[in-house]
Amino acid sequence: MPELRQNFFTKEWVIIATERAKRPEELATHRAAQTQPSFVESCPFCPGNESKTPPEVMRTPYGGEPWTVRVIPNKFAALSSDVQPVRSLQHLRRRVDGFGFHEVIVDSPDHAGFFPFLPDEHIASVLRVYRERYNALSRDRRVAHITIFKNHGLDAGASLQHPHSQLIATPVIPSQVRHRLYEALRHYDDVGECMFCHMVEREIGDETRIVCKSENFVAMEVFASPTPFATHIFPLRHMASFGDISDLEINDLARVLRTLLAKIYVGLENPDLNFTVRSGPAEYAGARHFHWYMSVIPRLTRVAGFELGSGMFINTVLPEAAAEFLRKVSVEKVLGAAAGK
Amino acid sequence: MPELRQNFFTKEWVIIATERAKRPEELATHRAAQTQPSFVESCPFCPGNESKTPPEVMRTPYGGEPWTVRVIPNKFAALSSDVQPVRSLQHLRRRVDGFGFHEVIVDSPDHAGFFPFLPDEHIASVLRVYRERYNALSRDRRVAHITIFKNHGLDAGASLQHPHSQLIATPVIPSQVRHRLYEALRHYDDVGECMFCHMVEREIGDETRIVCKSENFVAMEVFASPTPFATHIFPLRHMASFGDISDLEINDLARVLRTLLAKIYVGLENPDLNFTVRSGPAEYAGARHFHWYMSVIPRLTRVAGFELGSGMFINTVLPEAAAEFLRKVSVEKVLGAAAGK
Repeated sequence: MPELRQNFFTKEWVIIATERAKRPEELATHRAAQTQPSFVESCPFCPGNESKTPPEVMRTPYGGEPWTVRVIPNKFAALSSDVQPVRSLQHLRRRVDGFGFHEVIVDSPDHAGFFPFLPDEHIASVLRVYRERYNALSRDRRVAHITIFKNHGLDAGASLQHPHSQLIATPVIPSQVRHRLYEALRHYDDVGECMFCHMVEREIGDETRIVCKSENFVAMEVFASPTPFATHIFPLRHMASFGDISDLEINDLARVLRTLLAKIYVGLENPDLNFTVRSGPAEYAGARHFHWYMSVIPRLTRVAGFELGSGMFINTVLPEAAAEFLRKVSVEKVLGAAAGK
Repeated sequence: MPELRQNFFTKEWVIIATERAKRPEELATHRAAQTQPSFVESCPFCPGNESKTPPEVMRTPYGGEPWTVRVIPNKFAALSSDVQPVRSLQHLRRRVDGFGFHEVIVDSPDHAGFFPFLPDEHIASVLRVYRERYNALSRDRRVAHITIFKNHGLDAGASLQHPHSQLIATPVIPSQVRHRLYEALRHYDDVGECMFCHMVEREIGDETRIVCKSENFVAMEVFASPTPFATHIFPLRHMASFGDISDLEINDLARVLRTLLAKIYVGLENPDLNFTVRSGPAEYAGARHFHWYMSVIPRLTRVAGFELGSGMFINTVLPEAAAEFLRKVSVEKVLGAAAGK
């Protein structure tokens, strides 16, 4: 029997279409394993080509040579830090001049350094850079919200192959985020608890949607997932802002994120994917009602007219079946190979 | 200078990225003109193969042979009319048993009968069938919302080539629609006017985003369009429900919709696209604050991590440039060819 499920955080409905249901393995891409070279002469993100990018924002180790992670302004930035966020409203048409920051984080010097193939410690370095840029830009009073994300593969919007992440700081709060904050505040006002903390506790007790768990994080399939294998990673400690993550937690998150990405890489055969950090707006550090998380979204399906017209998605894979499938995928070989580097 | 714009109906922000801006013609697909045969032996929607589909819901002319438009249940329905919409809530997990209707409207017996190539009168027949099914299903008290849509091309989610439309009736109001209704009601309460009527009047006065106009309808690029060439067709008469469209208005809409689709077909070289009817929920027929419209969305770009993470889109084509481009596309040849059939 088909079923509609509601995402409690957004109130969005999704149709879990059991009549069209697919076994999770049917969505595998049948692609060969990744065989990128470690260095590409013409790649602007490979070492030695630093002059091909705009002047660098930062690198780790600070000012060090060779670098391990590098941050640069996006050459084709969607927003500009040279303008001021001046607002105007005329006949129901609201505009803001395009102030903002758009940065690229080059994950590693290795052209083949997709997260599953990097050592845990290296991923932790990347996450520390995320945190550093997040906190630095949060201090700018003109910044209302920061999105950190990664595009992996052409269908996920990656125009350059060299593994990199991005950060966009906007002078407004996206309406999707505003709705999520509003629902979270309403729940807190009504019930006196963070709805994310409540949900995480129940999901861990339930087990059916859990993919993997560590001391500080849990990765789970989303109950009302709009697309197959959408997976959330939640910190177990209540934290509204990603900027508050500790060094110890970063080490732990690096392992969980890498394990999850390796499971998707092996089990679904290297699908294109996005991941994103969904944090409260910059000034939400102390908020009791909100909770940041990461969202990993393999790009396995197409959006069609129903989704565009209604905003409601049809998902053909049961989240519980997706979780069971991912739990069983063995990634020792992939994780071990990187550890030996 | 880049610019952020807010959609007044949804409060969604979009980045108009002028630094990455493309001239409208750069988005053309470079595909050849469509060369589908008019009949395909193996196609379940072609005449003579009626037995390959589930038993028919209706056809026009009623019970006639040959048929001009045919409605059938979707063989792989996302929802089922055999179950009841029983709701449950347990630990923040809300579910509804998958009640609903999922119908396919076969636009014409012609396998090559994409809207730009059908006579206006035939498109009017299809729109009358939309209205008939919309009103029939609206009377079911279990139906909360109906989405009518078309997927044209593989990237737009069409799995069968024979031109067809679809209708999905759900027992819940999608949250995107709920937000739009809420904002519309708020505007009506505050200002005492339908915000859509106000916007349409201003846009017609402004002219810069108008593509074409008839006695009863106007097609315009969207001020805060999330993707290039997203175009809305608004009825000039205030009407909350698509079910209230008159026969005269349908004849007029057929011409406007066909002209717009022909302009996109010629100017952007047959891109995949979706269109959808965005109507108030079934019981909104008399609502003063809401206004139905059609949305036509060519599929020219990819959604990446920023969009998934924030819900905010980056659009690289200025809506005003898109409107100017479409206004100039001549479609006499395409429209004339069908009239001669």
